[in-house]
Amino acid sequence: MNPLLVTVGEPAGIGPDCVLRLHAEHPDSMRTCVIAAPAGWLRARARDIGMHVDVVEHTDLAGLAASSASTLRCWNPLDAGAVTAPVTAGTPSAATARAVIGCIRAAAEACMDGSAAAMITGPIEKAVLKDAGFPFPGHTEYLAHLAGDSPFVMMLASGEVRVALLTTHMAIAEVPATLSSPATLQCLRIVAHDLRSRFGIGQPSIGLCALNPHAGEQGHFGDEEIRILAPAAERARTEGLDVAGPLPADTIFSAPMRRRFDAVVCCYHDQGLIPIKALSFGEAVNITLGLPFVRTSVDHGTALERAGSDKVSYSSLQTAIAMARRMA
Amino acid sequence: MNPLLVTVGEPAGIGPDCVLRLHAEHPDSMRTCVIAAPAGWLRARARDIGMHVDVVEHTDLAGLAASSASTLRCWNPLDAGAVTAPVTAGTPSAATARAVIGCIRAAAEACMDGSAAAMITGPIEKAVLKDAGFPFPGHTEYLAHLAGDSPFVMMLASGEVRVALLTTHMAIAEVPATLSSPATLQCLRIVAHDLRSRFGIGQPSIGLCALNPHAGEQGHFGDEEIRILAPAAERARTEGLDVAGPLPADTIFSAPMRRRFDAVVCCYHDQGLIPIKALSFGEAVNITLGLPFVRTSVDHGTALERAGSDKVSYSSLQTAIAMARRMA
Repeated sequence: MNPLLVTVGEPAGIGPDCVLRLHAEHPDSMRTCVIAAPAGWLRARARDIGMHVDVVEHTDLAGLAASSASTLRCWNPLDAGAVTAPVTAGTPSAATARAVIGCIRAAAEACMDGSAAAMITGPIEKAVLKDAGFPFPGHTEYLAHLAGDSPFVMMLASGEVRVALLTTHMAIAEVPATLSSPATLQCLRIVAHDLRSRFGIGQPSIGLCALNPHAGEQGHFGDEEIRILAPAAERARTEGLDVAGPLPADTIFSAPMRRRFDAVVCCYHDQGLIPIKALSFGEAVNITLGLPFVRTSVDHGTALERAGSDKVSYSSLQTAIAMARRMA
Repeated sequence: MNPLLVTVGEPAGIGPDCVLRLHAEHPDSMRTCVIAAPAGWLRARARDIGMHVDVVEHTDLAGLAASSASTLRCWNPLDAGAVTAPVTAGTPSAATARAVIGCIRAAAEACMDGSAAAMITGPIEKAVLKDAGFPFPGHTEYLAHLAGDSPFVMMLASGEVRVALLTTHMAIAEVPATLSSPATLQCLRIVAHDLRSRFGIGQPSIGLCALNPHAGEQGHFGDEEIRILAPAAERARTEGLDVAGPLPADTIFSAPMRRRFDAVVCCYHDQGLIPIKALSFGEAVNITLGLPFVRTSVDHGTALERAGSDKVSYSSLQTAIAMARRMA
């Protein structure tokens, strides 16, 4: 199996801590993993937290063996001349923004050219990247761009539920006008396709969430169900997909109902993230569907105030790696 | 203790089933309860489901003893001449709409004049009441009107979490423009007041949910946090209330964070109802705060297709009665 590439995201955040602590405490979780980052980021953080670990840096991914229990292998894909400024735990710097982006791009390209099996991304500091000229709202949009503007779907998955999102990082006020039947249909198709191809579910059952409370009660409060969501669901059913809904969002996540679906497609970010984090905090994995490669991500942010401290949980990274390995 | 009045809501729905089955299986749960309904509604449903129960009808509430294990006591508050058309399980009729509303009004008035200790409401069929000229979106707004247009807050409570809503049955598209700092502050005050007076919590801790994903990320997607929610929270804090937020809605309901709050104030219906139903389906109680009396409600609808069948769960009614008894 080709290596699973892990990006640490913002090096001043807890991404390096998660990698180091997971490697130290559960080395088996990281078999087949290579960290796509300058070794210096990990060595510096290891010093900060008083951890002794052998971090080896390679500049060539081909033929690179994965980490052993004693050695953490880094693949530094950055140009030899690329300045990688020193990193201070807890203090993101514009000086490392290009390096952060370069590692993500290199990992995606390695997945696409077949030299890596999948990528797992740590948390980035969006404001810092934005100030450095990064024009994407987040990882997911950037990876879709690198894959040739591939249509994509953000999914979060845990043992309790899988949710997929029709819209992501957008003001609630903009959500209703952004929803459309074609985009809903495309999302349903991608989710159904990837549940088959990446999760091995023969005939996946998908629930579609309504936008409005009580699914709008036949148009009494909101008609997006009638105008947009129901026609898309109906069209998906004529294509042979097993889609139920639009169903009221507050009941679709109740225990008896959520178990009927392999995934629930949600209209907006919090509609999906509220229930999965309520039910499975620290165990949810962010998965990008629709890409030509497997990409999973942690479900937490950079937690700058905890970087370099002992208050870091690597459970989300551990589950993201395990999920990527299964999907690959 | 004065009686706890239970209204069955739509008589063609599962309200009567819940009362009959709870009385039969857990009579102790219904001690001190009187059903504010024509006895005929319960007798007919008892026949439908083959249950033998002694249903006694009184027309005067004063001095009425509560139900015993063998007898189910009804208080019929309707005028002697009020037509109460026959009820067919599963088929709501406009002919009973006025009687449904009359029972609710009579129960509320009995609470306000001190002859009842609290009221517990079963599910109504809103479309039928609306067609019959009922100008309120639901129970809660009607009760607030009866109480002299009292400002009110809808709360749902379970063992896991209590949520209070800034807006209720409204299209998502209308929510952003409906939120305001004064209404948010008023809600925070009512929640804090009633957590003290009805729940006996000395200094309640309240979390305020953001409207937008990631709380808008400093205005990057949505500025309602900056313009509306944060100023209201700040003002509440200057009044001595323990209010945190606005905080991202997807993390506030995660296990570690929700335990820090006695209640979470939410911007819209599904923001609060998704997590409580995901965590506590069938155990959540709907409570109206701000009224001059105690009112709780079941957390389910009329479930017309199950009325008169054996697929009826009374657990929500049972917890709503228990909650009303504790609060009263």
